Amino acid sequence: MQTLAQLAQIIKADLIGDPQAVVRRAQSFEQAEAGDITFAADAAYRARVNACRATAIIVAEAVPGATANLLIARSPKLAFARAIHALHAVAYQPLGVSGDLVVGEGTALGEDLSIHARVSIGKNCLIGDRVTLHPGVVIGDDSHVGDDAVIYANVAIYERTEIGSRVIIHAGAVIGAEGFGFVPDEEGRQVKLLQLGRVRIEDDCEIGANCTIDRGGFADTVLRRGVKLDNLIQVGHNCELGEDTVVAAQTGFSGGAKIGRGCVIAGQVGTIEHVIIGDGATITARAGITKNVRAGALMGGMIPAQEYNAWRRRHALYSRLPELADRIKQLEAIIRDAGFDLEAGHDLSAE
Amino acid sequence: MQTLAQLAQIIKADLIGDPQAVVRRAQSFEQAEAGDITFAADAAYRARVNACRATAIIVAEAVPGATANLLIARSPKLAFARAIHALHAVAYQPLGVSGDLVVGEGTALGEDLSIHARVSIGKNCLIGDRVTLHPGVVIGDDSHVGDDAVIYANVAIYERTEIGSRVIIHAGAVIGAEGFGFVPDEEGRQVKLLQLGRVRIEDDCEIGANCTIDRGGFADTVLRRGVKLDNLIQVGHNCELGEDTVVAAQTGFSGGAKIGRGCVIAGQVGTIEHVIIGDGATITARAGITKNVRAGALMGGMIPAQEYNAWRRRHALYSRLPELADRIKQLEAIIRDAGFDLEAGHDLSAE
Amino acid sequence: MQTLAQLAQIIKADLIGDPQAVVRRAQSFEQAEAGDITFAADAAYRARVNACRATAIIVAEAVPGATANLLIARSPKLAFARAIHALHAVAYQPLGVSGDLVVGEGTALGEDLSIHARVSIGKNCLIGDRVTLHPGVVIGDDSHVGDDAVIYANVAIYERTEIGSRVIIHAGAVIGAEGFGFVPDEEGRQVKLLQLGRVRIEDDCEIGANCTIDRGGFADTVLRRGVKLDNLIQVGHNCELGEDTVVAAQTGFSGGAKIGRGCVIAGQVGTIEHVIIGDGATITARAGITKNVRAGALMGGMIPAQEYNAWRRRHALYSRLPELADRIKQLEAIIRDAGFDLEAGHDLSAE
Repeated sequence: MQTLAQLAQIIKADLIGDPQAVVRRAQSFEQAEAGDITFAADAAYRARVNACRATAIIVAEAVPGATANLLIARSPKLAFARAIHALHAVAYQPLGVSGDLVVGEGTALGEDLSIHARVSIGKNCLIGDRVTLHPGVVIGDDSHVGDDAVIYANVAIYERTEIGSRVIIHAGAVIGAEGFGFVPDEEGRQVKLLQLGRVRIEDDCEIGANCTIDRGGFADTVLRRGVKLDNLIQVGHNCELGEDTVVAAQTGFSGGAKIGRGCVIAGQVGTIEHVIIGDGATITARAGITKNVRAGALMGGMIPAQEYNAWRRRHALYSRLPELADRIKQLEAIIRDAGFDLEAGHDLSAE
Repeated sequence: MQTLAQLAQIIKADLIGDPQAVVRRAQSFEQAEAGDITFAADAAYRARVNACRATAIIVAEAVPGATANLLIARSPKLAFARAIHALHAVAYQPLGVSGDLVVGEGTALGEDLSIHARVSIGKNCLIGDRVTLHPGVVIGDDSHVGDDAVIYANVAIYERTEIGSRVIIHAGAVIGAEGFGFVPDEEGRQVKLLQLGRVRIEDDCEIGANCTIDRGGFADTVLRRGVKLDNLIQVGHNCELGEDTVVAAQTGFSGGAKIGRGCVIAGQVGTIEHVIIGDGATITARAGITKNVRAGALMGGMIPAQEYNAWRRRHALYSRLPELADRIKQLEAIIRDAGFDLEAGHDLSAE
Repeated sequence: MQTLAQLAQIIKADLIGDPQAVVRRAQSFEQAEAGDITFAADAAYRARVNACRATAIIVAEAVPGATANLLIARSPKLAFARAIHALHAVAYQPLGVSGDLVVGEGTALGEDLSIHARVSIGKNCLIGDRVTLHPGVVIGDDSHVGDDAVIYANVAIYERTEIGSRVIIHAGAVIGAEGFGFVPDEEGRQVKLLQLGRVRIEDDCEIGANCTIDRGGFADTVLRRGVKLDNLIQVGHNCELGEDTVVAAQTGFSGGAKIGRGCVIAGQVGTIEHVIIGDGATITARAGITKNVRAGALMGGMIPAQEYNAWRRRHALYSRLPELADRIKQLEAIIRDAGFDLEAGHDLSAE
């Protein structure tokens, strides 16, 4: 629990209200009760502030006539994230090292660890202080895990992987499997290009459940400081994701893609190989990135679903666009021949 | 083995043929032999009934001149599902609890269990009767697993998860990882919104291999009774999927999506956040749901593949649709100026 | 290390240069140093051959004025794959069988194995010689694993699975889970069609991390010799993938799809059920295959991302294609009525 005076300081907000009022819980706007803190995401929520039962509401600006205690912050969502943390984060407590740990020669373990049962660590690894390894985690030879990292159940980490401090890896993720490189031989059989690089995950990254991050071919696949991946994301060999970039679920980066810092990549996006996306770019859901994207660009591409019959009719016309274009061209020719002044623009028949 | 008289009763069908004939095996229409039962999915199969070697064929209506024994059922596929079950389902037999079970304080285990080796169960869990846990299953603290649930190898279940009776979870699925919620701070670093909710999976659900179902932010992520998920599906935080809804592989639901009951969602579909899909809606493969969908609607969206060059040409024209529209508008202006009566409809230049 | 004379023989190339020169490492064109071998992928790389510091460069044809040693090969990438292998492949060395192996009755283990800790093998399995099983691998009853197979951490293999020789399965993959078959009963509850088939993976296949390959309904799901799957791929029940076919990440094959031999399937592709793709077909990224594809065809379908506002405008026009078509038709009618000779082609209003 926190007084609003304390909390205002922690979340960097200005209080309008009772500094001695106490909140014990963060909660959503709709579910909040007395004793809770919540936030108004935008003007529509601010307009409903008196319908909210929370003891304190974080807002972007003062709300005339508001009855609740208000905490004014430039980014209410950021202030709320800090409030949730202040009220609900549990301080780390080391659980110790399970007696059944399987660990290879030459591996050094840090202090104050929480290593659950059924963990396997290979040879010559370095495990930092206060690391948590949940059951079923497998770490290959010659890997490093930084201080305060948390690796959830059944994560598989291949050999020679570098994992920074405070990295969180959710259950089932696979880090460092071999990149997908094959070339057909004289008889059409696929010959593998051995993948000799590594995966390096810098500090403060978070990797979602069942993600797959492949090792590089020669150089490394790199996630820079603070990258956050949602679930079921594929990161191909030799990709590099820039600092603080966030990526939503089921997106896939083909080999060698370079993503800038501070990018926002939505879900189910795909990129071709070796594409470069500039810093601060935003890619909306399901976009297929086939060319380099400049810094700061906003790129879209999803075809929204439609009523099935309407979609069928539109799609049929889409399929017949060449014919449609030819008919427009023909009309233009007739009009021109009839003596009208037509500035026809480009010739649609030439691609 | 069953006599057709017995089987007709079990699968709720009317028999035309020999009640004492015996079938031992269910099989596909093409592969069926004497001693087998199969089904004719539609009229095309019914027309080929005498080319099928099965002893009994389930059909939607009588087939004049058929030589095989026929079982008439309104839904032959449903009757066939019941026949497969009657002939091939193996009664549950408890295997006992492996001596190497790792289990936390305060956890209560039910009776007649089948807990394989290498299972870890946290503290204060409740495991029902006749539950099967395959090797490598990890269950977090304060979780419940209902009677007759089957959890396959290497499934990871985070703390405080609720799993109903008869739920089946296939290998590698991750239940209850933290939802994807981040907000940038003053310096562009991503700050996490702690995820305090849970996952609740009601009775009779089935979850496919390597699916990921995130815990809610404050409230819970909920799969209602009888939801069936195929493989590699992402269910974001605070989603709710309605009773008996089925979802095909690789579909992703963004945070807060509410899917009605009895929906059919095909593969590789994606939805935006907080979207609402009404009861009984059907979403065809790869559709991108960007707006609420009314109950019973049929929504499409997949762009079918085409010969590469044809696709390139169509796509080039798609890219030039604004120009195409401008040219139509110009033609209309000329025609109108020439004195023709043109009911031009909407102005395409205004979006 | 190898002399160029030795290496030329191994990689089947013709040497132009010093046969006694020695290379110790394969490396990318940009990063190569003295002592390295690399390759020039195409004419653009060949033009820069003298900017490369490698001791030897594999090229498709002689480069006049080149200062480095050249190795001429028809497919430089193939020759390079062989060179990487010659310089960096590590000969198999058996690690033995972990003392904690859990193994069921009737299972036969081959010789010279490398079975790590925390592996579970069911009853009546057959494990070949020189097989490597990483920690957390779970193999169900009645399964076979061929000689020299490598199965990475936490792979789950269901009962009765057949895995050929030299197969590689990356971490987290799930082989043999039940296919997705349900049919609604009289009250809308989903009834399962039990899945009685198996998965058969022939020799020399490679399966990416976190892939899911479902067992067949009655017949088997089959990957023919030499199939290579990238990560996070879904293979539905009763699919068959032909010899030497390669598939990039996040692609999904619906039930019963039959893919020919030597196909190249890019990432995030999807197919409908029972579709047939002919030998040697190429499917570009994200294409949605809704109809059979003839042998050797090149199919496309990805909608490339665009600047968001441009995409919005194009999409709005796409949505209004029926109206656009009507307006063209109306213009044609006016032109025709005015006495112009118009060969109108097809009627766009009829689908």
